[in-house]
Amino acid sequence: MRRSPSCSFINRDKFLFEDKRDILLVEDNRYNVEFMLEALEKHNLADRVIIFQDGAMALDYLFATGEYSDRDPRMQPKVILLDLRLPKVGGLEVLQRIKSHEMTRMIPVVVFTSSAKDQDRQESYELGANSYIIKPHSHENFVKSVAEIVSYWALQNVPYC
Amino acid sequence: MRRSPSCSFINRDKFLFEDKRDILLVEDNRYNVEFMLEALEKHNLADRVIIFQDGAMALDYLFATGEYSDRDPRMQPKVILLDLRLPKVGGLEVLQRIKSHEMTRMIPVVVFTSSAKDQDRQESYELGANSYIIKPHSHENFVKSVAEIVSYWALQNVPYC
Repeated sequence: MRRSPSCSFINRDKFLFEDKRDILLVEDNRYNVEFMLEALEKHNLADRVIIFQDGAMALDYLFATGEYSDRDPRMQPKVILLDLRLPKVGGLEVLQRIKSHEMTRMIPVVVFTSSAKDQDRQESYELGANSYIIKPHSHENFVKSVAEIVSYWALQNVPYC
Repeated sequence: MRRSPSCSFINRDKFLFEDKRDILLVEDNRYNVEFMLEALEKHNLADRVIIFQDGAMALDYLFATGEYSDRDPRMQPKVILLDLRLPKVGGLEVLQRIKSHEMTRMIPVVVFTSSAKDQDRQESYELGANSYIIKPHSHENFVKSVAEIVSYWALQNVPYC
């Protein structure tokens, strides 16, 4: 399988991506989280899975603020699966923050949501979402979808850095 | 399998996506084209495949100019697989044109290239590429990669419109 080219400390030390597959899930529904973990484990798709159940904590992690102020913010995940309906800070605001900051704007963000509303989808793309996927209803298709999303972004896609 | 929501003649008639899976390949290597078609046919991934071997013709098609001036430019493909080394107009310029025009900027563009150069990849992302994938060397992995790319973008991803 193709690996992304190693690139550490390029661009004047702004970015550092480890050659590890960190996957960030921002999802408040515990059943969905279980199914997502099932997909990742079944196909051995992640070296580390980071899960946040609200948007505020996800932002603290990505920007190394609050509880995560000791974290190195140049270490970023290979892909973020982002729900839209989230407590504290909603998914669209999380997306806007990620895509408008130099340090995070190139992290692939897949909006993974139950919303089929044109407005949610179009706003997500306008804010810079790389992709928008509607959660399947059945357990089987949900797990399959997560495996395909993460396989695509963590194994096939070569990230910015 | 999830289908994208039907959306025709929305946004003041700017866009019209048929509920068909048109896939656009911009690739000048005839062997690569053969392998790509093999992947699409094997998995029945496209209703129609449009192939251009140079960047100029691809742009004429997308913007309904030149030979394609009779085409309805609101009918756009589900995804574009774009090589970078192309005759007449190079892939980066094609990408820049697609992503800077209101009518085409939301079409998912996957750069599918043999280039592992940081500069090509980073410039592609800066110009707005949705994803960047390096062509596998072996026939088997090449076909598998094309199938995964098109399956992801044509069947899983829900496009802007």
